[in-house]
Amino acid sequence: MPHSFHRMLLAGRDAAGLAADLASALPALETRTVPHGPLSPEDAAWADSYTGYTVPPNLADSGVRWVHLPMAGVDRVVEELRGTDVVLTRTVGGMPEAIGSYVLAHLLADAWHLREYAAQQERAQWQPLEPVRTRGAAVVVLGTGEIGAGVARVLRAAGYRTVGVNTRGTAADPFDDVAALADAAPHLGSCAALVNALPLTDGTRGLVDASVLDQLDGAVVVNVGRGATLVADDLRTALDAGTVRRAVLDVHETEPLPADDWRWSHPAVTVTPHVSGPTLPEDVVEALVAAHGALADGRRPPHVVDLGRGY
Amino acid sequence: MPHSFHRMLLAGRDAAGLAADLASALPALETRTVPHGPLSPEDAAWADSYTGYTVPPNLADSGVRWVHLPMAGVDRVVEELRGTDVVLTRTVGGMPEAIGSYVLAHLLADAWHLREYAAQQERAQWQPLEPVRTRGAAVVVLGTGEIGAGVARVLRAAGYRTVGVNTRGTAADPFDDVAALADAAPHLGSCAALVNALPLTDGTRGLVDASVLDQLDGAVVVNVGRGATLVADDLRTALDAGTVRRAVLDVHETEPLPADDWRWSHPAVTVTPHVSGPTLPEDVVEALVAAHGALADGRRPPHVVDLGRGY
Repeated sequence: MPHSFHRMLLAGRDAAGLAADLASALPALETRTVPHGPLSPEDAAWADSYTGYTVPPNLADSGVRWVHLPMAGVDRVVEELRGTDVVLTRTVGGMPEAIGSYVLAHLLADAWHLREYAAQQERAQWQPLEPVRTRGAAVVVLGTGEIGAGVARVLRAAGYRTVGVNTRGTAADPFDDVAALADAAPHLGSCAALVNALPLTDGTRGLVDASVLDQLDGAVVVNVGRGATLVADDLRTALDAGTVRRAVLDVHETEPLPADDWRWSHPAVTVTPHVSGPTLPEDVVEALVAAHGALADGRRPPHVVDLGRGY
Repeated sequence: MPHSFHRMLLAGRDAAGLAADLASALPALETRTVPHGPLSPEDAAWADSYTGYTVPPNLADSGVRWVHLPMAGVDRVVEELRGTDVVLTRTVGGMPEAIGSYVLAHLLADAWHLREYAAQQERAQWQPLEPVRTRGAAVVVLGTGEIGAGVARVLRAAGYRTVGVNTRGTAADPFDDVAALADAAPHLGSCAALVNALPLTDGTRGLVDASVLDQLDGAVVVNVGRGATLVADDLRTALDAGTVRRAVLDVHETEPLPADDWRWSHPAVTVTPHVSGPTLPEDVVEALVAAHGALADGRRPPHVVDLGRGY
């Protein structure tokens, strides 16, 4: 049913900039900037909507019925809103393509031996290495949602063949092929890379374990989904066995990754500090305008989260 | 005028494999494998065509009227054939796309801070760096021939805006825009990268000098054309001045690059050993079949070299 929102609280470092952008993009929406954490009684009574990276602990005691996240990953917030009648929307924007670009950067760096040539350069060593063909090489992408599809779009444009894996093997754009995880063995056994783009839910926690990794045959594993969907100990075993040739990890079950974690120093692991999916301020404004309009018209907002499914 | 060739000499490491492939792909063509260097009197009298990386010094005293190169770069061979009536063809195949992939690999590695994150990983340092947007970033490509066009195809598919530069500013596919070098100042001043894909001719030797490099504003320079088209001393000055932020050099005026050359150790230079444009055996076979058929029909072979222009 249609619901017009008029008074939004904005929390976070970028709240002041967001308030300024919204004043021109969405003048019917009044905003107040607040710190993260509990809402003051006055703000709680005033607001009907909220944008921030975390949910205020006393949200249930407020008039807020719409929460918007200035990012795409919702797992932490979903737990706190489950069972309420709050509408949760998130920001996707250019992030799927950015994550695709991150994956492509690391796959091409591997294929073109950038690390090896850098080491040779330190020794002033002129030694051509065997070229690795990427055109037509297969990449399996776990997760065919917005992030997985963005990864596939970027990799396909660069000449890779993309195979999406989802729960039921349901066809999905823009993948060349889609399989259910139970039927993915032939793809896992022959792919050049496995990209994990799964959200974190009860169903995906620890899903990428030895049973998946042991089916690979020297593939590169890239994790741009959530750290806790990948079993780190099983990854280590697979790296040491060679079923995984290299791991590129942008997300980790604990962030920041502790300084004594084995991943920092493993020679076949690349660690980056959760940077593959940056959200730009203009993405957040655009997402808020779209969601606000859809809610006012009684339409389903473009990036609304199903609190039951968790994504 | 039509000319059927029947007896070809094959020189080079890969000659035996090529002979086997040609036996099935082009059964009308007899072949002999020979070493590089002077032809024996018998081979010189027998052959009407030749495939190799260099031209035999006594080619003029032979029956050879068609020379095919199993690679794309022709500058050394052109000098030796100029003034003769020999037809020179070359192998392009998947090389333009491969060179594009090399350029993309290095531009994305730079944009995603792969070098910086690797250094941070050595210190177990979790420190997100400012994301660099590549979508819509402009790349100027010097040379709009087959290599330049291949680079543009790959970069456009990855979201870059490509500006080709050629002698007269003649429109060329698939560039978003094309300019003559004399009119390229606005593009040079605002591009994220300058890719040199020029062949080496009398007109391009030393073309990329201070007059070009000084127009850049912190761009990455990538050389995948020929080393001698870029003035190394001027590049060094531009790197130290910051007009060039980083140089990625796959080709060099002397190869292998001497061990004491400044480029090996300059912190803003990436050196690779001329690997960006590998030619595959199947590319050579395909090029030979196409050229052989065109010559027999009296058509212009697809990758025939104009010995006067030099490319």
